[in-house]
Amino acid sequence: MKRFVVGSAVRGLISGGRKCSTHVSKVVMVRHLEAVESRHEYVGGYGGFYWRRMMSSASAAPLKEQKEQKESAVAPSSVAEVKEKKSTDNSVAFSSYWGISKPNITREDGSEWPWNCFMPGDTYRADLTIDLTKHHVPKTPVDKVAYRTVKFLRVFTDLYFQNRHGCHAMMLETVAAVPGMVGGMLLHLRSLRKFQHAGGWIKALLEEAENERMHLMTVVELVKPKWHERLLVLTVQGVFFNAFFVLYVLSPKLAHRFVGYLEEEAVISYTEYLNAIENGKVENVPAPAIAIDYWRLPKDATLKDVITVIRADEAHHRDVNHFASDIHFQGKELKEAPAPLGYH
Amino acid sequence: MKRFVVGSAVRGLISGGRKCSTHVSKVVMVRHLEAVESRHEYVGGYGGFYWRRMMSSASAAPLKEQKEQKESAVAPSSVAEVKEKKSTDNSVAFSSYWGISKPNITREDGSEWPWNCFMPGDTYRADLTIDLTKHHVPKTPVDKVAYRTVKFLRVFTDLYFQNRHGCHAMMLETVAAVPGMVGGMLLHLRSLRKFQHAGGWIKALLEEAENERMHLMTVVELVKPKWHERLLVLTVQGVFFNAFFVLYVLSPKLAHRFVGYLEEEAVISYTEYLNAIENGKVENVPAPAIAIDYWRLPKDATLKDVITVIRADEAHHRDVNHFASDIHFQGKELKEAPAPLGYH
Repeated sequence: MKRFVVGSAVRGLISGGRKCSTHVSKVVMVRHLEAVESRHEYVGGYGGFYWRRMMSSASAAPLKEQKEQKESAVAPSSVAEVKEKKSTDNSVAFSSYWGISKPNITREDGSEWPWNCFMPGDTYRADLTIDLTKHHVPKTPVDKVAYRTVKFLRVFTDLYFQNRHGCHAMMLETVAAVPGMVGGMLLHLRSLRKFQHAGGWIKALLEEAENERMHLMTVVELVKPKWHERLLVLTVQGVFFNAFFVLYVLSPKLAHRFVGYLEEEAVISYTEYLNAIENGKVENVPAPAIAIDYWRLPKDATLKDVITVIRADEAHHRDVNHFASDIHFQGKELKEAPAPLGYH
Repeated sequence: MKRFVVGSAVRGLISGGRKCSTHVSKVVMVRHLEAVESRHEYVGGYGGFYWRRMMSSASAAPLKEQKEQKESAVAPSSVAEVKEKKSTDNSVAFSSYWGISKPNITREDGSEWPWNCFMPGDTYRADLTIDLTKHHVPKTPVDKVAYRTVKFLRVFTDLYFQNRHGCHAMMLETVAAVPGMVGGMLLHLRSLRKFQHAGGWIKALLEEAENERMHLMTVVELVKPKWHERLLVLTVQGVFFNAFFVLYVLSPKLAHRFVGYLEEEAVISYTEYLNAIENGKVENVPAPAIAIDYWRLPKDATLKDVITVIRADEAHHRDVNHFASDIHFQGKELKEAPAPLGYH
């Protein structure tokens, strides 16, 4: 079955010049399927579906989803016209022979789940009883190198961001989300080539990376990165990703200690952010919808609540990374100690 | 509080010369904590714990876990002796100031959950109704490059492994677990530097990588890799990881198409494996415990059941990657289409 679909414009998701306070992805796309679908061999049927999606987190209103499946027991032989459907939510018309569709997920109250990057099972309540003051006193050369490097880098970020706490947090998260991914990936590769279990640490480190990325997705709802901050993030990621990759290969002990100290500084930075909110220097705006869902916050939660839970997460990451470094310090592998699963 | 802990030997997890039919990790480790703990500043308390762990999948017997916490409101000032505890299960004595402990997880029947790399919520029943015959007919130059490369590489693997289906499967999984991790990581980095959502695809690709790794952990319970196969795996990983990384950066369209065809070949290979089992050329041994738990198989499941569900997984990955390539082919980004979450 061939279908003729009229093409339309696609608008970008996020651009540098627009406000970042709401991120709206409105995609209108209808495509010509004939060229694509003629390349598929059909055995048993053809599936197609259409849906609408709004990726704005400005409102927590349920998504409206339209799903239409067409099946044919034989290879496509007729042309059906699919018209672009417009509404206040722009439509995406997309067809897939491969049968990949978005699962129907709902909240506890039955409303449509609006998020793609996390599911209800990924949400949690942060542990606010966590000790924020823990600090690893550097004694060995490895500790001192890690500690002094972090403190040195902090001088520059404090000079650059000063009292722009939101932008500072945003930058912090673009960096903090890298180590967990690099570490998780290297443990994954190691597990494969050695045919060994990893003790849950792959998942633990990848969860840490995803959690930091969710911090970023939340903060980005609240602040607008300037062009030079975007450039800085690009540059820093290019350097830091490669440097940390090499570091983790050469010395996971130092790598984890470095991240532990990085997270200690993150706890300090978020405490300063909270102080600025409490002193009225930063407006205590309502919490973005994504934060309310992700951390299971009350509906009337504010920025202060969001920064509080983010800080608790950073304290947990501090503990995990210092612990991981301690394991290596004892000459052991991570898999010989319990992986911190189940926090998020 | 200072504690004096007697050190002991640690035995390796998996070594090349031993049989891979059971993988037993018996760790006996007791350590001297004084040097480590004196570097910690104590505010509020100290946490420590001990546990026993057996990582053999030869039996699904519940783990016995011992947990002991010691708390002190002041810096450590006394020495407590922790003696090594031996039993049929060797013990791990490990202490952590950072409060990281293994969560208490149980099966539905109340027995201790013996796995670290996946939790009960990660288990699933494979979709055995999936169409195993789907094939993407190569039409564009990109398709043809991908298809012919895979077919070319297949010649060598067929020559090398011939009828050694188990070892072929093992090698296949060490390769198949790489693309999802590389793709997921690159999408993660992109999301960070562009401050954009990824539509659930990071999680989807990382889940694919983890699923393939679980295939490997299962197959490794059944076959013993020879020294030259281990060397081959090492070499292939070094080459493939870097090559696929560059490929995904340059052309995610080609990368996903390549993986789609790779998975099509995987489905064929596992079908050949099943035929060999049905013809009696491969013994239909009982399924390993890890497979029974991961795929929620019946207790009397056999190798045939295991290969059947693995093959279904590969078919799903085939669909996901061909779909992802189709999205790119239309000039769109992955986040504009539904991410295949919820399968695993």
